[in-house]
Parts: sequence; structure tokens; C-alpha cells
Amino acid sequence: DGKDGLIHGLSTLELESLSDKCHEAKTTAYCPYSLFRVGASLLIHPSSPSSTSSPPLIITGANVENASYPVGTCAERVAMGNAVIQGHRLGAFKAIGVTTDLEDYCSPCGMCRQFLREFCEDTVPVFMFSKTGEYKVKTMGELLPMSFGPEKLPSREEMERKGEGRKE
Amino acid sequence: DGKDGLIHGLSTLELESLSDKCHEAKTTAYCPYSLFRVGASLLIHPSSPSSTSSPPLIITGANVENASYPVGTCAERVAMGNAVIQGHRLGAFKAIGVTTDLEDYCSPCGMCRQFLREFCEDTVPVFMFSKTGEYKVKTMGELLPMSFGPEKLPSREEMERKGEGRKE
Amino acid sequence: DGKDGLIHGLSTLELESLSDKCHEAKTTAYCPYSLFRVGASLLIHPSSPSSTSSPPLIITGANVENASYPVGTCAERVAMGNAVIQGHRLGAFKAIGVTTDLEDYCSPCGMCRQFLREFCEDTVPVFMFSKTGEYKVKTMGELLPMSFGPEKLPSREEMERKGEGRKE
Amino acid sequence: DGKDGLIHGLSTLELESLSDKCHEAKTTAYCPYSLFRVGASLLIHPSSPSSTSSPPLIITGANVENASYPVGTCAERVAMGNAVIQGHRLGAFKAIGVTTDLEDYCSPCGMCRQFLREFCEDTVPVFMFSKTGEYKVKTMGELLPMSFGPEKLPSREEMERKGEGRKE
Ligand SMILES: [Zn+2]
Ligand SMILES: [Zn+2]
Ligand SMILES: [Zn+2]
Ligand SMILES: [Zn+2]
Repeated sequence: DGKDGLIHGLSTLELESLSDKCHEAKTTAYCPYSLFRVGASLLIHPSSPSSTSSPPLIITGANVENASYPVGTCAERVAMGNAVIQGHRLGAFKAIGVTTDLEDYCSPCGMCRQFLREFCEDTVPVFMFSKTGEYKVKTMGELLPMSFGPEKLPSREEMERKGEGRKE
Repeated sequence: DGKDGLIHGLSTLELESLSDKCHEAKTTAYCPYSLFRVGASLLIHPSSPSSTSSPPLIITGANVENASYPVGTCAERVAMGNAVIQGHRLGAFKAIGVTTDLEDYCSPCGMCRQFLREFCEDTVPVFMFSKTGEYKVKTMGELLPMSFGPEKLPSREEMERKGEGRKE
Repeated sequence: DGKDGLIHGLSTLELESLSDKCHEAKTTAYCPYSLFRVGASLLIHPSSPSSTSSPPLIITGANVENASYPVGTCAERVAMGNAVIQGHRLGAFKAIGVTTDLEDYCSPCGMCRQFLREFCEDTVPVFMFSKTGEYKVKTMGELLPMSFGPEKLPSREEMERKGEGRKE
Repeated sequence: DGKDGLIHGLSTLELESLSDKCHEAKTTAYCPYSLFRVGASLLIHPSSPSSTSSPPLIITGANVENASYPVGTCAERVAMGNAVIQGHRLGAFKAIGVTTDLEDYCSPCGMCRQFLREFCEDTVPVFMFSKTGEYKVKTMGELLPMSFGPEKLPSREEMERKGEGRKE
């Protein structure tokens, strides 16, 4: 990494933006139950050759909790939901950032890994930023190996032909 | 309703915007599993005296599904997550809109009612728009009566004093 | 109620069992994050004419939390999941019980109302027991009016013919 | 593996039971939406020295879907919820089994990996059985590396002292 001036494929500017934006997003969290703020950021692939003058496109999220804990949602899913309704799909995501108030890095929960995986290739890097901006980075494939995804589900036709799920 | 020219507190312009925006949002849904598109819209209270010249502020969402069905999310929660990270909290929401591809109106699922309820008073109207724009309207309090919410949870101090939850 | 010696269709023995079992279930909760213990109980319709000598069949659950709050689950859903894999489906449930450590009654969250609704008719009574055994009772239809359910979803064939959900 | 007659720590009898039970559980699934049946099984550590005469204790689950897809739950979480309310906690689980109607093995979704991880050490083996009984096996640590868990959350006191989560 870095020989080409890139860090896991990101320019210095992109990486800085990814970090800044997820730290900013963290301050918008609604977490009166856990008191644990999380921010997430998604770097969108420039659809046209990027120019150093145009800022990287980044979409963010933060955790939104609920009095019924299972009903709340995580920063990563708020960010990705936001990106999807803006039209971004598989192939659109160049990198993911996540941060908390911990000194140490913090990884996405398994539910978020699954949600992100629907739209991110195994090679997409996930930057886990500490409170002070250092990071650890792993790819989606490293964080959710042998993942369950769309290609595992048989076609509807095959399912109905077998008909086993209908037995209830 | 309507004597003051308002429909459940909304001006004609606000109601039209609420409807238009949730129909637009519906087209951004990612739902390859259910094929059931849903759009949601949230009308934000103007923080200053509203003027007929400024358009109503509306935040939207659509459903985002996952190969692991329980991991996906609904239109209403995408919209509300988006609103919360933009800083909107309890008191900010004037009305909710939801629509699908059904001829008939369709109500939010119970999970979404619970998610919305954290940020909406019982009096907030929920407009359920049919595909062709007619609507049925119910308040949050009507859709989730005797709801479970933040005020039901004892203070942390009281919980810890009793300590029953720790017995495991 | 009560003229026939029944309370919302339940015998005194059934109601006592429903209450006892959900209070017992509560003690099995895993809730280190909220410290808020919840117990749930489901009274199964006797498939054959009930006899006072055979005890009512009741299936229970308690909340099981997770460090990632949205991943945890509620008492009512643990109980119903348990019942479903034992073969019980729509028509099998005669009453639902729920209790917490609150002096006051506590209602199921919206997500649980939605989960229960898949298998319970609108007329099924939900007994919300206070810590000391008093209760408030509402039917499923009262707790989740205008509910979203299976009959709202168009047939697969109709969905695919329209094909709108595929546009992404 | 196998030198001691054990497969990832399991006796032949234990492995056969784990497989049989999750295949049986699969037949109890309620999955009218996905038609994708899943069965899960949890092998409980014998609390006393095991004897070949007593059968292995196995707790099972199957997926239970909902018309609102995100409200449904997976086989693995039904099984683990069931185990937890029976009193089993971290340290109690010797192995996990999962199977579907696919010819190929199928892995747990990310949400289930997160739910299981709360109660399973990194070393617990997860057996993914094909329809015909072959398996692939991975440990919990391999399926959810760098996982987010209870030890990541700061103490309540530390959270409140910093107070950042309260700013909303
Ligand atoms: Zn998460
Ligand atoms: Zn919903
Ligand atoms: Zn609940
Ligand atoms: Zn799962």
C-alpha cells in the first residue's frame, strides 16, 4: 500500500474525508440508552474520472436507538439506507468508515456487516477509526467470511417446484 | 377538519408535497425479495413561521431489503433515521406519509410504528396513500395505542438499585 | 365477562397459569444492558375438549439482549418462536401474557405486536400483568389496529406481472 | 482432528445428533415468504462427565418469518433464545449446527453470528450441514472475526462521566 500514493485504493483526501465525515456524523447520534455514539461514512466511487478539485462524495449515518432496544438501528445501516435511496447499489461503494467514542477502534456488528454486504464487494475496505483518528482496516470479505448473500438463495421457481417451505 | 383550510393541520400544499414525495421515494426502493415497494415521507415542522413561498421540508425513505430477510429495513425507518441524523427529534414531525404499489392504502408495520413513536407525539397524523393518491389517515396514538416508550423505562439508578436484571 | 366464570374466555386456572408462567419466565431473562426483565407466556388452545385435571399448555419466553442492541430479542418473540417450532400456528393461541418488574402493567413493543399478529387473530386477549399480578387486558386487534399482515401482500404472480419491485 | 476419535471436540454420537436434530428442526420452519427452510441445533456441554448412555442435550430452532420481512427471525436465533431461557449462558455451548434445503452448505447470516457470539466463545465450532448431511465447519471466531461484543462497551459509569451520548 502507499507506493502509488493510495491507501487501500483511497487518496489521502478521500481517506481524510471518510474519517472527518464519520466523526461528524457521530455527533448526530440518538443513543440515550447505550450512551454509545457511533458514526459511519460511505465513500461513493466517482462515476466519472475523479478530479482533485471536486470533493469526494460521502454519505453518513449515526445510531438511532429505541426504548425497545431491538427496534433501534446502527450507524452503518442508517448510512447505507440513505445511500441506497439515493440510487447507489452494488459497485458504488469504494470504502466504509466507522468510529465511536472509544480510544480503540471498533468494528461493525454482525447485523451491519450483513446489511452492508448486500451492496459491497468482498474487497471494499472498512476503516475503523479510533476517537483520535488512527485506524485499523479490514475488507468486507475479512469481516464477514463465507457470507450468506443473494446468490445463495435459489430462484423463486426452484423454490416453488420443491415446495418444501410451503409445508406449514 | 377543513374549516380552517387545513387537513389534519396540514395545508393543501403540505399534503400534496407529503404525497408526492413518498410516491417518488417509492421508486428508489431495493426490494428484490418481496417485490413490494414502499415509500415514506416525513413533514418537518417549520421552525419559524411558515411562508407560502418556501416549500415544506420533507425527508423520505424507501425499503431496503436483504438476502437475510430480518436484516432488511422498512421505508419508514430509513426516512426517520435520515431525519434524526439531520437533527430532528421529538416535536419536529408534523405528519407522516406512506405509500405502496397497492390500490388500497397500506399501514406501517408494528416495528415501524415503534420506531416512529420514539420521535412522534400521539397526535401526529399518518397519511396512508393509495397508489392513486387517495388516503386514509390515523394518528400515531391510534396506530400504536398503549404504546411502550421511553417513559416506561425506570431510571438507570432505580434499575441498578433493584438489581434484578443483573441476576444472570 | 365472568358471567360464565370465564375471563376473556379463560378459566381461572388458565389465567393463573398464564400469570404464573410469565412471572417465572421473567427470571430467565438475559438483560445486562437494559436491566429490564420481561417474561411472556402463550396459552395454547386445547386441541381436544379441555379437562380441569390436565394443566393448560403454556409456552414461555424472556428477553435476550445483545451488546449490539438491535440484535437482541424480546420475551414475546422468544415465546412465539418457541411455539411456532413446536407446530403451533394461526388458531392455536388462546391468550398472551406479559410481565416486567414494573409496578404498573407494560405493553408489548410494536415489533412484538407485529410478530405475534402473524399467528394470532384480532380477538386474542393480551394480559399485561403488573409485578404484583394485577392486569390490564387488550385484544391483539386493539393493540395493533389496521395492522399490516399476510393478506396485504399481493400474490407472487401479481407482483411479478407488475414487476415494479425489480426496477433497481 | 480425529486422532482422539473426536471431530472438533465432538464424539460421533454428538455430531450425528447435532446433524439429525437440525434437519428435524428444519421441518418446523414457518417461511411462506422465502420458502427457504432453515434448521439450527445447539449442542450443550454436559455439565457432568458425559456418559455414552445419556443422549447429548441439543436445543433447536427454525426460521419464523413475518409479512413485514424485517420482523421475522432466523433458525439460529430461535434456537439460542430457547437455550438462554433454559438457563444456558456463555460456556454452555459445545457446537452449533445449521442446515437448509440447499445441496451446498449454508452459513449463518451476520445478524445470527452476532446473536450467537454473545454466548459462544471464539472456539465453538459451527457445523454447516448440506441437505444430504455433509458438512463444512468453521469456528465462531472464523465466522465473525474482530467481533463487536460486551467487552467493547465501556462501563456505564465511564459512559456517564463522559456524557457524550446524552448530547441530543
Ligand atoms: Zn450494527
Ligand atoms: Zn415496517
Ligand atoms: Zn418487543
Ligand atoms: Zn440469521
